[in-house]
Amino acid sequence: MSATPTLVALLHGPDQPGLVARVAGWIFERGGNILHADQHRDMEAGVFFQRVEWVPAKGNASADTDGFHAFAASLGMQARVTSSSHRPRMAVFVSKFDHCFHDLALRWKSGEYACDLVAVMSNHADLEATAKGYGLAYHVIPVTAATKAESEARQLALLRSLDVELVVLARYMQVLSDDFLKAFARPVINIHHSFLPAFAGGRPYHQAAERGVKLIGATAHYATAVLDDGPIIQQDVTRVTHRHGVEDLVRKGRDLEKIVLAQAVRWHLESRVLVYGNKTVVFD
Amino acid sequence: MSATPTLVALLHGPDQPGLVARVAGWIFERGGNILHADQHRDMEAGVFFQRVEWVPAKGNASADTDGFHAFAASLGMQARVTSSSHRPRMAVFVSKFDHCFHDLALRWKSGEYACDLVAVMSNHADLEATAKGYGLAYHVIPVTAATKAESEARQLALLRSLDVELVVLARYMQVLSDDFLKAFARPVINIHHSFLPAFAGGRPYHQAAERGVKLIGATAHYATAVLDDGPIIQQDVTRVTHRHGVEDLVRKGRDLEKIVLAQAVRWHLESRVLVYGNKTVVFD
Amino acid sequence: MSATPTLVALLHGPDQPGLVARVAGWIFERGGNILHADQHRDMEAGVFFQRVEWVPAKGNASADTDGFHAFAASLGMQARVTSSSHRPRMAVFVSKFDHCFHDLALRWKSGEYACDLVAVMSNHADLEATAKGYGLAYHVIPVTAATKAESEARQLALLRSLDVELVVLARYMQVLSDDFLKAFARPVINIHHSFLPAFAGGRPYHQAAERGVKLIGATAHYATAVLDDGPIIQQDVTRVTHRHGVEDLVRKGRDLEKIVLAQAVRWHLESRVLVYGNKTVVFD
Amino acid sequence: MSATPTLVALLHGPDQPGLVARVAGWIFERGGNILHADQHRDMEAGVFFQRVEWVPAKGNASADTDGFHAFAASLGMQARVTSSSHRPRMAVFVSKFDHCFHDLALRWKSGEYACDLVAVMSNHADLEATAKGYGLAYHVIPVTAATKAESEARQLALLRSLDVELVVLARYMQVLSDDFLKAFARPVINIHHSFLPAFAGGRPYHQAAERGVKLIGATAHYATAVLDDGPIIQQDVTRVTHRHGVEDLVRKGRDLEKIVLAQAVRWHLESRVLVYGNKTVVFD
Repeated sequence: MSATPTLVALLHGPDQPGLVARVAGWIFERGGNILHADQHRDMEAGVFFQRVEWVPAKGNASADTDGFHAFAASLGMQARVTSSSHRPRMAVFVSKFDHCFHDLALRWKSGEYACDLVAVMSNHADLEATAKGYGLAYHVIPVTAATKAESEARQLALLRSLDVELVVLARYMQVLSDDFLKAFARPVINIHHSFLPAFAGGRPYHQAAERGVKLIGATAHYATAVLDDGPIIQQDVTRVTHRHGVEDLVRKGRDLEKIVLAQAVRWHLESRVLVYGNKTVVFD
Repeated sequence: MSATPTLVALLHGPDQPGLVARVAGWIFERGGNILHADQHRDMEAGVFFQRVEWVPAKGNASADTDGFHAFAASLGMQARVTSSSHRPRMAVFVSKFDHCFHDLALRWKSGEYACDLVAVMSNHADLEATAKGYGLAYHVIPVTAATKAESEARQLALLRSLDVELVVLARYMQVLSDDFLKAFARPVINIHHSFLPAFAGGRPYHQAAERGVKLIGATAHYATAVLDDGPIIQQDVTRVTHRHGVEDLVRKGRDLEKIVLAQAVRWHLESRVLVYGNKTVVFD
Repeated sequence: MSATPTLVALLHGPDQPGLVARVAGWIFERGGNILHADQHRDMEAGVFFQRVEWVPAKGNASADTDGFHAFAASLGMQARVTSSSHRPRMAVFVSKFDHCFHDLALRWKSGEYACDLVAVMSNHADLEATAKGYGLAYHVIPVTAATKAESEARQLALLRSLDVELVVLARYMQVLSDDFLKAFARPVINIHHSFLPAFAGGRPYHQAAERGVKLIGATAHYATAVLDDGPIIQQDVTRVTHRHGVEDLVRKGRDLEKIVLAQAVRWHLESRVLVYGNKTVVFD
Repeated sequence: MSATPTLVALLHGPDQPGLVARVAGWIFERGGNILHADQHRDMEAGVFFQRVEWVPAKGNASADTDGFHAFAASLGMQARVTSSSHRPRMAVFVSKFDHCFHDLALRWKSGEYACDLVAVMSNHADLEATAKGYGLAYHVIPVTAATKAESEARQLALLRSLDVELVVLARYMQVLSDDFLKAFARPVINIHHSFLPAFAGGRPYHQAAERGVKLIGATAHYATAVLDDGPIIQQDVTRVTHRHGVEDLVRKGRDLEKIVLAQAVRWHLESRVLVYGNKTVVFD
């Protein structure tokens, strides 16, 4: 929350001795001061992961950003560096359910999210007034089986024209195609209303009621080509009993969905999530 | 915990108006006093479920037990009536892991469970000294693919000779055959070390680590012919992060398994669990 | 959610044999059908508590309501009977924090609450536009130490003129006087941002940070003359670590406060909460 | 769990720029490889905290241990360095309740704790057979108001003769005096059966039932001169309802107490807990 811009680097690559010291040394030599540093080793895979946040020396922010990328490359590591002065541009996709959308919009308005919410896109017109009530641009792009490719092309063009860096699917009821995800090539966070991998696919609350589980869940994950199979960012559950019918699961699930999606978006915006393979390292 | 014996009836059947009043009236007319009564309606299926616990009039315990069965039948309902003076005979099956076994044995010794723990059975000799330390009879019946039918026949004979009314699989690493379950025809509670239906089958903690879930779980359920698919009695989860390797999941999972299995056994022994279809109603 | 109006009775009084049967019998004889019935006995205090919900015979709703009160009185019990066709009139008090208010308003608008939200009152003008955005009347009644009695008189007059049956304090930052509560004589639900009885009074998140607790909580309770000491309806907690400063506790606490208050209001509106002494029985 | 000994340093002191780099650099220059490093800044207090774990260069373990203390001192920091090859000597104090003791003993026997459990001390003889069943020495030192000072002197002498480095109070029902704690001058972990600071002192479950809370808790903390007021290491809660009498709270609380105490002891033994003021930083 400080006024001084800080830099956050997320890096990972083959483990080797001395990485913590080298990264800290590089920052120190350039006059930077580390505020937070957290690292993880996947012993089996031999991969090193680190999130490091520092205050660069005066005037060094830009040079440090470029320099760190080069430095990381010299260690055989991949890095992503972001500055706290950069506010990512976020778009939210919705359909007809509004609970996750309200939740995200209110958090954004209250200053919880350091991002610019630049667009709301939907395959339906239902939430237009709601979005405009928050002062947000609302774009209706209908999607049908026949027009899906064309609709996605329009979505993509809009996202590009707005330079959107993060898409959040707030109970958006369409599956984004592999082509779309590849072409967009930036993170897309989805909320699925079950404790994945249980109850992937459609109507998870009905599936949960059918199976008689005693907890229902929600999962926020990055969208990938395989439905409901992307890297999991956050999950949570709540207790249910035989007294809860499907409608109750839906109602209780709404609160779970909001909390889980809000947390995942927050972590992403704070550069706390590092994806590798089909998993995430969350430096919380 | 009262010294006065009470009766507990679990009943279910087609819903119809007046069931609560009829059951309460039947007990009242015979001089009984209801201590607890809880009921549930599955609106979709049109099924009524009830657990009712009462103090019968002096000397009526036995007659009420028989009478209630007849009364329930007259309403088209199925009933199971148990007396608090009856201590069910329980057997525990183990293999090599001892954490759930210690947990059950200690709860039993401390008086938490109103049952007689009459036997420990295992396909291995490893826990013999442990069982005997608790003063429990330990029966080793090895199981191999070739001898499975024969081994199950010996297990069954032993359970029958001991008049065992409940079998608890405390991380017993063999699958009981459909034939065994049908022949035994009494409840068998199993603990599975995942949040079912996620990660059914073998090595669930490895599956969980592979998928990168943020919560791991445990599930206590009645064993049925389909592996890890029986009616769920209780589930719980605990949070894990990227910092937890498979060994940590195993360690953290042990605490979950103990708590979840202990709760399921307790509910079963208190006649709080009613199975219908592949689900349970738990009157907690 | 059924179209058929149902009646809910909450009753309590000295325990005596046969109460369950008598209540069920009374309803049955008058042609009613019990949908749900849950009861509790406080063994030590010798008090019986029951919540019973039934479909009265056609045309009997009003007569049953009156009749049940008389019937309960004949058993020496106190009863409160409400009809599902009655929508209670609710007022929300706010100050400057808006998170609980948004949460309640959105739930109400989405149909989660079967009540009429008839007024928002505040000691500040800050949330006026917010309230009006939801189409709600907003009444500013400033409160100072000097004018408190007068302000409360105005609040009370307004509540009475609107026939408000439930007041919800959604982070309203003034303490209601004992006189006000006595004069209003209807339920007032407050949300306190700590796990009571820990950290009663002012600045509970600061108190929690100071003490170094590992969980923070929120408590919804009925307001009484003693600050933060009324009957508790619902509580929940969330985990915090040394990494969370007071600002983080405040942020994380907002989500807790919303969930806990929303649940308490829901239970109250569904006639699930019975107060006795300084405690509640919640028939959930 | 590695066979290679590692060193863990816990250090804290006035914050200053470059601390992370200096510590990492010191270890790197001496041929060490950092496995884990976690740090924290208390912004308000201006204090820096770090836990760093590294593999020293061959043959350097002892020299690094001494050297790090000197190095930390040169930075104005306090440090505590432990080697994974050192197994701390632990004593458990008990009275009559055995659940926490069984839990600790079983975890220790299963290899969960890297320590030597060298003694069980009690003011009662009740658990002697239990302790001996685990192969543990059991020392009875009765404590009465009149003999307390003398009893504590005997306890202290015994702890010193056994070179005990950690005392765990596993529901030990006596308060250790300030004199004892000062003289022992090593960590003492206590489990209190409430969510502190709520319900400090005696009979917390009775206090909780009296107040009508909806969650009960347990708290593990370092014992200090002020009863139930020491730095909190871990806390957890579980949900209760009006249906749970005091006996149920006691039973449910036992499971909480076991889990919370076991976790606190584990963190302490892994050098993850740093005390400052009356709070802890837990590097989990």
